[in-house]
Amino acid sequence: MADTRDRIIVATNELFRRGGYHGTSLSQISEASGATIGSIYHFFPGGKEALAVAVIDTTGSVYRQLFESIASDANDPADAFINFFAGAAAVLEESDFIDPCPIGTIAREVANTSEPLRVAANNAFNSWIEAGREHLVAGGVPPEEAEQLAAVFVSTVEGTFVLSRTQRSTLPLVAAGRYLSELVCRAITEAALSHRPAATGTRSTR
Amino acid sequence: MADTRDRIIVATNELFRRGGYHGTSLSQISEASGATIGSIYHFFPGGKEALAVAVIDTTGSVYRQLFESIASDANDPADAFINFFAGAAAVLEESDFIDPCPIGTIAREVANTSEPLRVAANNAFNSWIEAGREHLVAGGVPPEEAEQLAAVFVSTVEGTFVLSRTQRSTLPLVAAGRYLSELVCRAITEAALSHRPAATGTRSTR
Repeated sequence: MADTRDRIIVATNELFRRGGYHGTSLSQISEASGATIGSIYHFFPGGKEALAVAVIDTTGSVYRQLFESIASDANDPADAFINFFAGAAAVLEESDFIDPCPIGTIAREVANTSEPLRVAANNAFNSWIEAGREHLVAGGVPPEEAEQLAAVFVSTVEGTFVLSRTQRSTLPLVAAGRYLSELVCRAITEAALSHRPAATGTRSTR
Repeated sequence: MADTRDRIIVATNELFRRGGYHGTSLSQISEASGATIGSIYHFFPGGKEALAVAVIDTTGSVYRQLFESIASDANDPADAFINFFAGAAAVLEESDFIDPCPIGTIAREVANTSEPLRVAANNAFNSWIEAGREHLVAGGVPPEEAEQLAAVFVSTVEGTFVLSRTQRSTLPLVAAGRYLSELVCRAITEAALSHRPAATGTRSTR
């Protein structure tokens, strides 16, 4: 039974990545997952909207874990962003430029019309911002700046998915990774200079 | 007659900003524009897809002109980006967080399913990148770097619209404007240093 539920979520995720929320019908989901429409309603009594909440929650966790895994493997805090965008570029190219993430499309389609979906997308984005913030703070960026940089990171992920898919080019992803890494390097350097112990120098850098 | 065509485009633009491409029906467009469905087909024989191409083309030009106008009024090249995002933040707040731009949502919904819409969105994005590139080159950024920064600008616009609408907050827009401005300042400074005439110093900065 759990297998069927998972299969429905996986199939719906892929359909949303190709056609968005309104462009995907329950009969397409039934066909792609091999589950009857009755079975879909059994697992998701709220229908397509409830199923979309489950897809957003699942994708939100998967992407957070992906970022955390890339971040912990990176040689330095700024490299994590270059590596994340390089990975996204590879996924995009391998999949013939279908969307790596269903959440941004759904969020834009329904932010003003479905409060449950807006809240689910907001939770996913906030969890990515939190992961980015923790990574940056651990790397030496002051918390408030880390929060803002992490929000720019999440915006940039979603924005480069739009541009890269539309251009059918991974260049926007590569450029974004490089510039984010540059911003992170600069934030870390500035924080290190401004918090240098007094014993190592008498002049403040600010 | 031209009035009816314009009225259809304006009404469709607003419906797309609220509900996306697949979430908007011809009967909603008819109702919102006061034009019959027959009249919509008279002006757009290709139906909703052809109408969407017209909406994308129109919005693409309007946004390009908006950026050029903000850029030419800015005190310095980097300020243009702060001002652009501040303007977008004001529009978003005044409109109760409906999407400032219909193009990104449509692009994500149909990039793999409608080649005419993908091409129209691509032309719009490329024209914004071109406007950004020209502005940056005029401000002293080398052409290749200007092209990449301009692509990051367009990605960031689209990405912050996703995040700001989902969070119902203008903070991501404000942060993005500030960081883009920082990247632009840095690119201008580095270009100026690396192209300093030899007579003003004997050491290269690179």
